[in-house]
Amino acid sequence: ISSLYSKLCKFMKKAWEIGVNDPRKFIHCLKVGIALTAVSLFYYLNPLYDGVGRNAMWAVMTVVVVFEYTAGSTIYKSVNRICGTTLAGLLAFGVQWVASKAGKQLEPVIVGVLLFLLGSAATFSRFIPTIKARFDYGVLIFILTFSLVSISGYRIDELFDMAQQRISTIIIGTSLCIIVSMIIRPVWAGLELYVLVTGNLDKLANSLEGCVAQYFEAQSTSEESNKKLMDYKCVLNSKATEVSMANLARWEPAHGRFNFRHPWKQYLEIGATMRRCASCIDALVGCINSENKSSDEIKKIMSTTSMKVGANSASVLRELSITINNMTKSKKLDSLVKEMNIATQELQNLLKSYSNTHNVNAKETSSLGDAKMEIPIMEVIQVVTVISLLIETVARVEDIVKS
Amino acid sequence: ISSLYSKLCKFMKKAWEIGVNDPRKFIHCLKVGIALTAVSLFYYLNPLYDGVGRNAMWAVMTVVVVFEYTAGSTIYKSVNRICGTTLAGLLAFGVQWVASKAGKQLEPVIVGVLLFLLGSAATFSRFIPTIKARFDYGVLIFILTFSLVSISGYRIDELFDMAQQRISTIIIGTSLCIIVSMIIRPVWAGLELYVLVTGNLDKLANSLEGCVAQYFEAQSTSEESNKKLMDYKCVLNSKATEVSMANLARWEPAHGRFNFRHPWKQYLEIGATMRRCASCIDALVGCINSENKSSDEIKKIMSTTSMKVGANSASVLRELSITINNMTKSKKLDSLVKEMNIATQELQNLLKSYSNTHNVNAKETSSLGDAKMEIPIMEVIQVVTVISLLIETVARVEDIVKS
Repeated sequence: ISSLYSKLCKFMKKAWEIGVNDPRKFIHCLKVGIALTAVSLFYYLNPLYDGVGRNAMWAVMTVVVVFEYTAGSTIYKSVNRICGTTLAGLLAFGVQWVASKAGKQLEPVIVGVLLFLLGSAATFSRFIPTIKARFDYGVLIFILTFSLVSISGYRIDELFDMAQQRISTIIIGTSLCIIVSMIIRPVWAGLELYVLVTGNLDKLANSLEGCVAQYFEAQSTSEESNKKLMDYKCVLNSKATEVSMANLARWEPAHGRFNFRHPWKQYLEIGATMRRCASCIDALVGCINSENKSSDEIKKIMSTTSMKVGANSASVLRELSITINNMTKSKKLDSLVKEMNIATQELQNLLKSYSNTHNVNAKETSSLGDAKMEIPIMEVIQVVTVISLLIETVARVEDIVKS
Repeated sequence: ISSLYSKLCKFMKKAWEIGVNDPRKFIHCLKVGIALTAVSLFYYLNPLYDGVGRNAMWAVMTVVVVFEYTAGSTIYKSVNRICGTTLAGLLAFGVQWVASKAGKQLEPVIVGVLLFLLGSAATFSRFIPTIKARFDYGVLIFILTFSLVSISGYRIDELFDMAQQRISTIIIGTSLCIIVSMIIRPVWAGLELYVLVTGNLDKLANSLEGCVAQYFEAQSTSEESNKKLMDYKCVLNSKATEVSMANLARWEPAHGRFNFRHPWKQYLEIGATMRRCASCIDALVGCINSENKSSDEIKKIMSTTSMKVGANSASVLRELSITINNMTKSKKLDSLVKEMNIATQELQNLLKSYSNTHNVNAKETSSLGDAKMEIPIMEVIQVVTVISLLIETVARVEDIVKS
């Protein structure tokens, strides 16, 4: 029992930490509680209850199902729910009307067949990528409402009243959700995406600088710096989050410095180039940790220039992050890119001259070490060239983003 | 209008292709249709309707919401729905009973406060990773049912009968879903995961072989081979799918050659190492496409051995894929890994001896080209060493997987 208790304690502690690390999660929970309590008033207060009747249940249900963490997600689900319900309701009425003309015997057959066909077709449409990205929930609600209305039409007579009431309660529920999620400390998917992207740029810069520094200065690898070094791994795995955020951000109204038609897709492009950059850093780290150690001599020679290249690329990445932050094209960026390119060129020149001088000395020093020695620096160059290529792409994207 | 029509045609064609490429999607749609029609019988047939009454609606709803593409996902949602509903129902009864003792005036206040607290707490629990992975849907249903039951207890007297009927209809709906999804051409999440992983191994092998061959043989880049080359990009982006599949596969009963406690987590490990491998290939491709072209001379010298290394690593990857396929440890794998390591060693030796001879000739040939020249081959070695490291990891995983 005591082990169970300690496990429980651990679990609670962990859960508490999640909340403390991101207080907005606590706030979100409170918001859900507020929305739920508010909607329950429709059931408890007599004047409100008389208006909607027992269908107030549907408002409660809507709140539970629709309320999501980000405002964009809530709006997406609300709009989808309302549209899906209305569309399916109208269609179901049409079907019901046609079927009722055919007589009580044939009615279930007609409705059943149509249900089968429409259900299959709607399910299939959920596999189509564009629909899946924007209207997945709406189609689900469409199937749900259509089957409920068309089936219950067989037993219930005042179908129209019921449907009308249900739609109005759903509208009440969704508008309550939208209001609560947008007024009380809103969490915007767009802002999240934007923080994620700029944060990732900074992380890349840290990793890049860190791993170059670690290699050339042979720093004692403190835990903190090691942790920073591994930051790039987050960047590699952030694709799914970015895509869903961008999808949701599209539903959000103008907020803060973001317009309604903010170019969210460009964040995805930046994200993709960042991921390419991260995979380069991954290769670089693998190279640093590989068994082929180079001699200290060559390290010393290359160290200053390589560090410079690393630092320059990192500062370009940081400047990019600031640029996106300000949403204006900074003049500093161009000069930084130039500086970085110069540093890269320098490193290449150094390498060339080194291999010149080294070749002369080759017969003296063991040239066996030579092959191994150059690998990491070659790798650095390779990474740097890819990065400079990449930064050009990002800079191009920047031209469009400025607004 | 005609442009709209042509757009619609295009859209339909695209949708049709999605279905033709994976006929199981068509079958899934038919399955949904069948389940929907079957559940509607509860409404149309009098003997069945008398059993469940108007709550038959809940069975329809359950089918729509619970039925998913993979069997694992359907089972996961079904189990979660039943557990969540039952638990929340019981709790709500407790709350209702306590509140009703407090009198009609105080009842809404007590229920409201408890609703607020429980709703917030349950919402918070959805942020905890372990709960999110396994019981996310269950918690949602818990909130839903709890609020519905506790609120409606204020107006309805035969609450217990209603709840009982509702749970029984939900059980009817979920069992119908599970039966249909498991009997008619089931799509197992576990099998999907397994096909994805082995397919990715093959793709990696193709890409690796392809890009080495392209570089050294300067093949005319036909479209097909180019497409094969880009296969590794799928591997990079497959993380989210793998994780969700592994989560769902855990819910599935034994099927085919998979036991109930099949080590699904190991697939994720293999996936992670594969992604590392893919990012190496990414760097390699970037290097091949970079502007630093090496001379033909050095290419020729290195070509045979490099090709051998590429082919060997590819065959190791393929053998791994076969091994996972058979779920037995193959003896061939060990010898292939050995062969690959020998080939890698050979390449390294060649490089050393080359840099030896080349250093002697350095004064004659332009050693300016030298630095640039060696980059790609260095890169190949680097990739190969990382791959061999990686293959050792995978081989280690294999020891555990064999069953």
